Amino acid sequence: MVFVQIREAKEGDCGHILRLIRELAEFEKLSDQVKIREEDLRADGFGENPFYHCLVAESLPGPGESQGPCVVGYGLYYFIYSTWKGRNVYLEDIYVKPEYQGQGIGSKIIKKVAEVALDKGCSQFRLSVLDWNKRAMDLYKALGAQDLTEAEGWHSFRFEGEVMRKLAGK
Amino acid sequence: MVFVQIREAKEGDCGHILRLIRELAEFEKLSDQVKIREEDLRADGFGENPFYHCLVAESLPGPGESQGPCVVGYGLYYFIYSTWKGRNVYLEDIYVKPEYQGQGIGSKIIKKVAEVALDKGCSQFRLSVLDWNKRAMDLYKALGAQDLTEAEGWHSFRFEGEVMRKLAGK
Repeated sequence: MVFVQIREAKEGDCGHILRLIRELAEFEKLSDQVKIREEDLRADGFGENPFYHCLVAESLPGPGESQGPCVVGYGLYYFIYSTWKGRNVYLEDIYVKPEYQGQGIGSKIIKKVAEVALDKGCSQFRLSVLDWNKRAMDLYKALGAQDLTEAEGWHSFRFEGEVMRKLAGK
Repeated sequence: MVFVQIREAKEGDCGHILRLIRELAEFEKLSDQVKIREEDLRADGFGENPFYHCLVAESLPGPGESQGPCVVGYGLYYFIYSTWKGRNVYLEDIYVKPEYQGQGIGSKIIKKVAEVALDKGCSQFRLSVLDWNKRAMDLYKALGAQDLTEAEGWHSFRFEGEVMRKLAGK
């Protein structure tokens, strides 16, 4: 049994976080979309007005083990704004390395996000999941989340790149 | 033909914006969920680090008309963070009063959001729409947006209230 702690990310974790971001995107079969660099993560998450916040799951060495602590998962979130409820949290990414899955680390991250959200006066937090990722969907439902796409019919839309420039007349 | 300008919201617009937020929620058949008050909108959008930004569509009186300018639509957005692309914009709400629909005001708001997003160095902006709101879906698609729920299978999940407190052990 590995002991894992959930803690706030430090700037020095950005290299580990980027590796996990890439692993998650590979799992989601969308890895060609990752354009971010470690220096972006450092600048955007650790300045005066950070654009995001991050929790990391760190496995701690057992007695007599020579290996140091190791980042094995992360949850990256930011504050959003609901015109119904005010300030809320959005959990953009949550990921645990495959060899550490099944030990409740994902649930620990979700619980910590709930704690942070309540501490900041938020009444809800949202996240998105791919419909073929049954394991994640089942976990979120088991923890009490509601699938709003299923229940209310919400679809997610995106404008990007050339389309945006055309819209903006640029 | 009414002349409509899109401009940044001022604190004094919050009363109008709240009325439109309620109208939109009624249209979405989810008006019981609106808990926000005008004072929240004032505090959250017009302080030093605003939680959201808002555009309003304002109809201007024609020559000889006695009525003053009138807020007939809004687009409320904030900055989010993609671990693939960095800082982005999320358009939380977009709404035009029924009697002003069909005049291209929604498109004007979308175009202004695209402009703001590009000016802030964002490569995309996202929004959510209810699957029965065909008119809105058709407009976003016509303007070049991609339906990510349809194309990639993204579902939106939400944790809230008692569930969150239980998760956080509070």
